[in-house]
Amino acid sequence: MAAELFSAAQVIAIKRDKLELSEPAIKWFVDAYVRGVVAEEQMAAMAMAILLNGMNPTELSNWTKAYIDSGTTMNWSALGRPTADKHSTGGVGDKITLPLVCVAAACGLYVPQLSGRGLGHTGGTLDKLESIPGWRASLSETEMFEVLQNTGAVICAANETLAPADRRIYALRDVTATVESIPLISASIMSKKIAEGTGALVLDVKVGSGAFMKTTQQARELAQTMVAIGKNAGVATRALLTAMDVPLGRSAGNALEVAESVEVLAGGGPSDVAELTVRLVQEMFEAAGVMPTKDPVSALTDGSAMDVWRNMIVAQGGQVDAPLPRAKHTHIIRSTEDGYLTKLDALSVGIASWRLGAGRARKEDLVQAGAGIQWHATLGDSVKAGSPLFTLHTDDEDRFAGAVEALTDGYAIGPENEISDRLPLIIERIQ
Amino acid sequence: MAAELFSAAQVIAIKRDKLELSEPAIKWFVDAYVRGVVAEEQMAAMAMAILLNGMNPTELSNWTKAYIDSGTTMNWSALGRPTADKHSTGGVGDKITLPLVCVAAACGLYVPQLSGRGLGHTGGTLDKLESIPGWRASLSETEMFEVLQNTGAVICAANETLAPADRRIYALRDVTATVESIPLISASIMSKKIAEGTGALVLDVKVGSGAFMKTTQQARELAQTMVAIGKNAGVATRALLTAMDVPLGRSAGNALEVAESVEVLAGGGPSDVAELTVRLVQEMFEAAGVMPTKDPVSALTDGSAMDVWRNMIVAQGGQVDAPLPRAKHTHIIRSTEDGYLTKLDALSVGIASWRLGAGRARKEDLVQAGAGIQWHATLGDSVKAGSPLFTLHTDDEDRFAGAVEALTDGYAIGPENEISDRLPLIIERIQ
Repeated sequence: MAAELFSAAQVIAIKRDKLELSEPAIKWFVDAYVRGVVAEEQMAAMAMAILLNGMNPTELSNWTKAYIDSGTTMNWSALGRPTADKHSTGGVGDKITLPLVCVAAACGLYVPQLSGRGLGHTGGTLDKLESIPGWRASLSETEMFEVLQNTGAVICAANETLAPADRRIYALRDVTATVESIPLISASIMSKKIAEGTGALVLDVKVGSGAFMKTTQQARELAQTMVAIGKNAGVATRALLTAMDVPLGRSAGNALEVAESVEVLAGGGPSDVAELTVRLVQEMFEAAGVMPTKDPVSALTDGSAMDVWRNMIVAQGGQVDAPLPRAKHTHIIRSTEDGYLTKLDALSVGIASWRLGAGRARKEDLVQAGAGIQWHATLGDSVKAGSPLFTLHTDDEDRFAGAVEALTDGYAIGPENEISDRLPLIIERIQ
Repeated sequence: MAAELFSAAQVIAIKRDKLELSEPAIKWFVDAYVRGVVAEEQMAAMAMAILLNGMNPTELSNWTKAYIDSGTTMNWSALGRPTADKHSTGGVGDKITLPLVCVAAACGLYVPQLSGRGLGHTGGTLDKLESIPGWRASLSETEMFEVLQNTGAVICAANETLAPADRRIYALRDVTATVESIPLISASIMSKKIAEGTGALVLDVKVGSGAFMKTTQQARELAQTMVAIGKNAGVATRALLTAMDVPLGRSAGNALEVAESVEVLAGGGPSDVAELTVRLVQEMFEAAGVMPTKDPVSALTDGSAMDVWRNMIVAQGGQVDAPLPRAKHTHIIRSTEDGYLTKLDALSVGIASWRLGAGRARKEDLVQAGAGIQWHATLGDSVKAGSPLFTLHTDDEDRFAGAVEALTDGYAIGPENEISDRLPLIIERIQ
């Protein structure tokens, strides 16, 4: 066995004692963990020390780089055109990626997106797309390049060889109460996006009950931390803090969100989804430093974004004209009185959708393609006694009770002057 | 698999978030760790969270109790006489346990001492006694009871069934940079002493270069923490902070310290060893709440402590009259000038003794019975050019160079006005 440059306990002690970890110490620690020289318990102690004592921007950039260096990286320079990507920290009804990649591609960007599956009350882009019959998430790097070159956009699963240190550390953090660390969250997100090889990156950091970050202050700190990592790695990075106190659009679930995305791509759909899509595409162009070939708004109305969608789905085996899966059972919740929807809580809606079968509790769980929830009114809308408020969809009738329970305190009907305050859709921009 | 009362990550999160761990949560966490339900990485994250966020006295008493409850406990009530023990946090030349148990027993206490082996530059009581031909450290609980009943004192190795959680957590802390935590150090020491079943306990917390605690402030905090744990467990506990800037007595090593202890038991020997022995015995009686049957000082001069020694050693197979082992080689360092010993650093002497073979770097290493160091002058003594300052003992001649190097900056000869300040032998008493 070759001599090691450092002792794991000594490197942990540096962070424990609030001193600065050097670049070689970080590089060695992460690499030695992947090689099995640093044990799980040593990485766990380090993760807790990082959570409690933090990391400065230099340490964090080196820590992220060590994740990236643990695996392969992608490179799209052979395309000869600017690339940009978007990452959302996750929310309820957040299907923005689906229309967004198509609008961006229709306006002249190439969007190489590696995406993930959902966990808990937030959905995952791959779960949504997998509700399209025939569509497959796993592509080889060559296939990914071809789809991207031919259609301008590709959404697929990350290869196991991309930032493998992050994958292992993420699993370890989950069982050691070290998930809630802004540096560790940032390194995890940014390592995958940087390894993905995108030239520019826009982060959609959600704020509110349905988001991981409950307050603007927390979200701002996360956004600033990730933007700094991106810049230090040479990726032009911007962030928007956006609202997740109320769910986005009018549906949460897998096939339900695909259907809503297709409405938006056809120039209709909920206005908040269309507005956020366009705004994030504009940020992607700004970050990439190029002008769009057309107005992103017009890409939604002239059919060009829809063309990208159809080509992209077909290129990954999807039967773009086939009917989407529908759940076996539906249950409608109606208003018992006339008034206004004075409350609509994103977290409650997200939990209801999860309980209906749209989401998973553990990563090995399966999701139902047709399960989910539609809300027929959103915050502030007027409603009539007897009018439908929610339609719940599931393949298992016995899931309705839990979903209804989750919703009970998640909405309210009352007079107009009791309508809750809400966050602006775009809260803040971080550059 | 039976359902678990808690989730490990949720319990870790409580300490991570600086909230108070409940008694059931602590009890479950430690027990589940011993059962293999809480993984090594989870205990490592908890240990780092405890190191960085601390534990309040209630949490720490419950944590210590969970260690104790992981194994068996001893009970000496069948003796019908008061028991008391002493624990030292470890120092250089600290052979106090050897004369102390004999003096205490000669004055009417029963002393059931479970002791350990040395690691690093501090010696271990069992290593010292094992230099006596035939003496054995491992006794069954029945044998331990018999030696104690027949001689008034017993020193032996802790059974593997005593506080096994502590043994495993100690090994984990060693590799995860979580050793330096006053709550975790305190729980480790006190769990073994409480499980040992002693009725009263005196802690000798060493302060100075040769001790684990370098400052009086640190030592005071450790002493106060341990005294509180003892009291909460119903064991009358006292602590003395004592000097370890200068080594104790005139020798460090295994057989060398046994020989010096026998001198003290014969009414002679270095005055600091005799003084600290008597003072700690007085504290043991005070803690036990009984009066000594004679003055501890007289037990050293009237032969009664020596009688206990001889009986106790013989009861454990020791050939009390056999010559002690001597190292194969000796090397003398002499003064090059007339003057005073203006410096004598405990840590330097301890490292020299360790390098000569008296100590071990890893717990599986063997120690040399005869190795060690004698200092013929102590701090402040006048010396003549050519007079011996140190005699180094080892079985391996090639160890001399490293020991001499360790000593080089550890002593100095100079004029009387340059004699270093030293800590008082007894710095402070904590009750």
